[in-house]
Amino acid sequence: MKPVGINRHDAGTARRMIAEGSFTATDYLRACLDRIAEREADVGAWTYLAKEAVLAQAAKADASQGEGALHGVPIAIKDIIDTHDMPTEHGSPIYKGIIPSSDAACVAMLRRSGAIILGKTVTPEFAAVTPGRTANPHNTRHTPGGSSSGSAAAVADFMVPAAIGTQTVGSTIRPASYCGVVGFMPSHQILPVQGVKVQAGSLDNLGILTRSVADVALVANAILGCDALHAEPTTHPPRIGFCPSPHWPQAQAATRQVMEDAIALLRGAGATVETVELPASFDAALDAHWTILAFEFARAMAYEFYNHADELSPRLAGLLERGFATPFAEYAAACALVVARRREFGPIMAGYDALLTPAAAGEAPEGLTGPSDLLFQRFWTVLHVPAITLPGFVGPQHLPVGIQLIGAHLEDTRLLRAAAWVERAIQASKHL
Amino acid sequence: MKPVGINRHDAGTARRMIAEGSFTATDYLRACLDRIAEREADVGAWTYLAKEAVLAQAAKADASQGEGALHGVPIAIKDIIDTHDMPTEHGSPIYKGIIPSSDAACVAMLRRSGAIILGKTVTPEFAAVTPGRTANPHNTRHTPGGSSSGSAAAVADFMVPAAIGTQTVGSTIRPASYCGVVGFMPSHQILPVQGVKVQAGSLDNLGILTRSVADVALVANAILGCDALHAEPTTHPPRIGFCPSPHWPQAQAATRQVMEDAIALLRGAGATVETVELPASFDAALDAHWTILAFEFARAMAYEFYNHADELSPRLAGLLERGFATPFAEYAAACALVVARRREFGPIMAGYDALLTPAAAGEAPEGLTGPSDLLFQRFWTVLHVPAITLPGFVGPQHLPVGIQLIGAHLEDTRLLRAAAWVERAIQASKHL
Repeated sequence: MKPVGINRHDAGTARRMIAEGSFTATDYLRACLDRIAEREADVGAWTYLAKEAVLAQAAKADASQGEGALHGVPIAIKDIIDTHDMPTEHGSPIYKGIIPSSDAACVAMLRRSGAIILGKTVTPEFAAVTPGRTANPHNTRHTPGGSSSGSAAAVADFMVPAAIGTQTVGSTIRPASYCGVVGFMPSHQILPVQGVKVQAGSLDNLGILTRSVADVALVANAILGCDALHAEPTTHPPRIGFCPSPHWPQAQAATRQVMEDAIALLRGAGATVETVELPASFDAALDAHWTILAFEFARAMAYEFYNHADELSPRLAGLLERGFATPFAEYAAACALVVARRREFGPIMAGYDALLTPAAAGEAPEGLTGPSDLLFQRFWTVLHVPAITLPGFVGPQHLPVGIQLIGAHLEDTRLLRAAAWVERAIQASKHL
Repeated sequence: MKPVGINRHDAGTARRMIAEGSFTATDYLRACLDRIAEREADVGAWTYLAKEAVLAQAAKADASQGEGALHGVPIAIKDIIDTHDMPTEHGSPIYKGIIPSSDAACVAMLRRSGAIILGKTVTPEFAAVTPGRTANPHNTRHTPGGSSSGSAAAVADFMVPAAIGTQTVGSTIRPASYCGVVGFMPSHQILPVQGVKVQAGSLDNLGILTRSVADVALVANAILGCDALHAEPTTHPPRIGFCPSPHWPQAQAATRQVMEDAIALLRGAGATVETVELPASFDAALDAHWTILAFEFARAMAYEFYNHADELSPRLAGLLERGFATPFAEYAAACALVVARRREFGPIMAGYDALLTPAAAGEAPEGLTGPSDLLFQRFWTVLHVPAITLPGFVGPQHLPVGIQLIGAHLEDTRLLRAAAWVERAIQASKHL
C-alpha cells in the first residue's frame, strides 16, 4: 500500500512545498487523482469526484498567489455534508442526485482558505447503518469502519491528505483507528455543523481525518477562519492518565497489547502515565447516550421516515421506530444525566494533559460491515470532550490499531499539543 | 381587531369542535383564509400562502377520521424553516424561490399529526436584521417585533391558531409580547431544530406561538410525536420568584407597571411571589451571549457571506464581519462561562415553580424596525432554560405587554403548568 508520489505529503507539507515551488498544486492534485484512478476500484472511497472542476481550480490556484492556509490543497467531504456544486446523497436513494442550494459552513470555510473540494466520500445510509462499498486500504477484505468510511479510507490510501467526517457515536475515531490515520473530534460543535445532516443534534460533531496532528490544527483553523487551535508538541513530556474506560473488559487482545505497548513507549519517552478510574456513576452515561441518540435521530429523520419509508433499509427504519417509541421522560432523564457527568468530568481531567484510552475494541473486522464496535468512542462523544486517535501500532493481523487521547472540554489545543508530543514519540520509536 | 368567526378558537378547541362536528376543518380553514384576505394587506404576515393545496388537505381531513392531535388544524411556519413543497427564503433574495429537498423535522412531525401547513411567515433577513413588511396587528404603525414577526402577527390577528418560530436571542418571546400572544421557548433544543437555518448552533431554539398555554403543549407534543409536555394548571397556587433580571434599569414605565400589576394579581390569586436576585456573576452571561452569537453566526453564514456578499444587507454583513473578527479564545471563554452559569442556575430555581421577569422593555415601538429591545430575552436563551410569555396586560399606548415566566432546564412541564395557572388567574381577573 506504499505511496510513491508526492501525494504522500500531508496537507501542511504540500501547502509549503507548493508555496516554495517544489511542485505545483496541479502536480499534487494529479498525484492524488492518479492514486484514486489506481486504487478506487479496490477501495471504493468516493461517491462523487469533481475531476474536471478540480483541475481547473488547481490551475487557477497555480496562477495566483493565494494567501489561504490550504491554497491549492485537495480535501474530501463526507457525503452527509452539503456542497452546492456536487450531489449530497447521505448514502441513501432518497437523495440520489440531489444538489443542495448551499455549501455547509465547513465546506464554505475550507474553500475560502483555498482548499480544493475534491469530492464526496462514502458513508453508510444516513451515517448510521447499511455500509457503503468502501474497503479498508490495508486489507480490502476488512471494513474501513464507519460511518466516515470513505473519508478515513481516502486519507489512509493517500488519495487525499485530509477529509471531513462526523461523529455522533464513534464515526471519526473508529474508522481512523481501523485505517491507521489521525482522527480528531473537537469539543462539541466548536466547529460549525451547519449544513451537516443532523443525526442527533445534541451529540453530532464534525470530525477531521488527516495523516498528521499538525494537519488537524491546519484544517480546524481553516474551518474556523482564524488562529484557533495549535498543535506544536508540548515542550515538556505530558502528564497522561490511562483510562481503561468502562468497556475495558470488551477490549480485544490486540487493543490490550497496544495499550500496554503505548504506555511503555510513552513512559520510555519521559511522559508520566497514571491509571485513572472513572467513578461508577459514569457507566450510566453509555445507556443515556443510546437513549438520546434514539430519541433525537427519530425526530431528525421524520421527513424521510414518514415520506420515504420504502427507501429506508429495514434496519434503519427499526432504529427510528425504537426512537419514536422512547418515552420523553426517559429522554429528559438521559439529558439531565449527561449534563451532570459533563460537569463532573472537568475535575477528573484537571491533573492531566490527556487521557489515554482505546480507540476501538481491536483491529478492523473482516467483511464490509456497518458501524459496529461502538464501545470505545461514544463515551467521549456524549461527554462533549475533544478526542484524537493516533496511528502507529498494529495488531496480529497487521492491521492498524489506534490509540485515543481525550482532552478537557474546550481545551482542544492542550490535547493537540500533547497528541503532537505523543505522535513524535511514536515516530521516534520506529527509528530505534 | 376583534375576530368574529370561528377562527377565534385556539388549536385545541378547534380540533375538538371539528371532531365533535360543530364545524369542519374546511370551515375553520376558510375562516382563517377569510381573515387573511381581509387583513393581510395591513398586517403583512405571510411570504407564502398555500391556498389551493390547503383547501384540498382540509377536504381530505374532513373525509377521514384522523387520530392526529392536530387533525385538520392549520399551522404557520417561519420562513427560515424548510418545507419541501413551499419556498423557504430566509427573508433574503439569495434564497428567492428556493424549495428545499425535505421538510424540517418540526414540519414533518406537524404534518404527521394531521396539521395543515398553511404557509410561511415573514422573517427579517436570516432572522437577524432588515425587518420584513409585517406590522403589529394591534396598531399597524408599530412593529410586531422580530424575528418571528409574521408568526406572532398571524397568530395575534386570528389568521392561524398557532405558528412555529425560533429564538436565538429573543425572537419568540419579544414578538409574542408585542403582539399579545403566548410565546414559548422550550429547554434548549428538546424540540428538533433539523431543517431550521442555523444562526448560532449553541443558542438556536424552536419557538411556539399560540393563543393559549394548552396549545403550547399540544403543538410541542405533536412535534415530538409523543406525550411529552403537560399544561394543565397546577392544583395549588405556584411559588413564583420575581426576578427583575440584570436589565431592570432599562425596563420602561409600561413594563415596570405591568410587573407590579402582575405581582399584585398573582398574590391576589393566592400565589407566593418573592424577589430573587441573581448573583452578580450572571451579568457577564450577557456579553458572553453576544460573543457566542457573533462567532457562530459568522461561520454558519459562511456560504452566503463569501458567495453572495452583494445580496446581504450592509448591516448583516457588518455583523458577520465582527463575528469573523472575534478571537477564538474569546469565544471559548464565553462558552466556558455560560456552561458555568447554566450549572449555577439550577439551584437558584430549586425553590420555585417559575421565575417572573419582563418579556420586553416595553410596548412595541413605533415603526417597522428590526429586532431591537434585546435585553429581557437573551439572558434566558443563553441559560438554555424554558421561557414562556403570557398576554393580558397593556401599556399606555394600549399595546400588549407580556409577562415572562422562566423554568428550570428540562422542567418544561413544571413551567407550563405554572403558566397555565397564571393564565387562568389573569383571565379570571378580567371578569372581576
